[in-house]
Amino acid sequence: MATTTFGAKDVQELRQRTGAGMMDCKKALEESGGDVNRAVELLRKKGIAKAEKRSGRTASEGMVASYIHHNGKLGVLVEVNCETDFVARGELFQELVRAVAEHIAAGVPQPAMAVTREEISPEIVERERRILTEQAQASGKPENVIQKMIDGRIDKFFQEVALLDQPWVRDDSKTIGELVKEAGAKTGENLVVRRFVRFKIGEE
Amino acid sequence: MATTTFGAKDVQELRQRTGAGMMDCKKALEESGGDVNRAVELLRKKGIAKAEKRSGRTASEGMVASYIHHNGKLGVLVEVNCETDFVARGELFQELVRAVAEHIAAGVPQPAMAVTREEISPEIVERERRILTEQAQASGKPENVIQKMIDGRIDKFFQEVALLDQPWVRDDSKTIGELVKEAGAKTGENLVVRRFVRFKIGEE
Repeated sequence: MATTTFGAKDVQELRQRTGAGMMDCKKALEESGGDVNRAVELLRKKGIAKAEKRSGRTASEGMVASYIHHNGKLGVLVEVNCETDFVARGELFQELVRAVAEHIAAGVPQPAMAVTREEISPEIVERERRILTEQAQASGKPENVIQKMIDGRIDKFFQEVALLDQPWVRDDSKTIGELVKEAGAKTGENLVVRRFVRFKIGEE
Repeated sequence: MATTTFGAKDVQELRQRTGAGMMDCKKALEESGGDVNRAVELLRKKGIAKAEKRSGRTASEGMVASYIHHNGKLGVLVEVNCETDFVARGELFQELVRAVAEHIAAGVPQPAMAVTREEISPEIVERERRILTEQAQASGKPENVIQKMIDGRIDKFFQEVALLDQPWVRDDSKTIGELVKEAGAKTGENLVVRRFVRFKIGEE
């Protein structure tokens, strides 16, 4: 029995990405030594897969919603995922998605930079930390106090720019993250704010 | 007379970005040796600029429009710029923006990857060229013919994935770029598709 360097999951992924048949996919994976990306290329070269399908990785359900404000000077697009189409079509989920889009458009305390604090670029966090450190050192307080000041302020920075950490514009007793969790509990599904953008005219 | 490493334009940019006064901005630029980014940091440290203003670079007018399709399974957000608010509020311009959003949502011949061919990532172009080269070489034709085949196919690739090069879904006798130019001629302004996103549920 020959050893193979790929599994059924690789074949399935390749089929999803290329739309090619099972046997063609297996053959391409053998040829590529199990490298799926290379196998996609091989199938395309052979003309079996005309173009890589752009979808496929996540099978999650959900909804894309927009919020256009100020007579078209500001727009938001947001994608929220859930587990089933049944929940995606429900009023409760759709209300949540609209609320999140509206919140992002409002841009308070300032426009969110990312969904979670982990997704904010390290350069931005580093720059913020540098500024806060210099500010704190200027206070002339002891080193241990300064460290606490910096930690507290970095945390506040995240609360201001990470969407899930921001207090909801309509009820600041809860964060957007809590709002999403609440809706998740009500629908019985794991709800995830996947991505968003906010375009404002005249903004960099 | 002291030599300065910055000009009136730098002061203006700094004022726009921080909201700080003229003299504070000049001082900060002197201190930063003309580095505007560093001057922003200096002003923040001094507490003169509480937070960097997020807008400023472009003063252009325009409109942000969305297009939600397939019961919320697909969404597009697009920003198109013009020169004056007068044109931005006009029916002709707004129709153009909606048409572009609708076209991006349709995603034909395939979803646009970028506004212009120059903005498509070099890695993607390189990968495409590699595949097309191997395909062309497999034809066994002479080298000069092969080169023409590759050039022709790369051009076709750009027509498929660069928004401005794509034939308009509603009238493929013109490209989106030509549609925008036409509207520009009618309004007498330079119109620019600045950016767009397309979110599709279940897509990578």
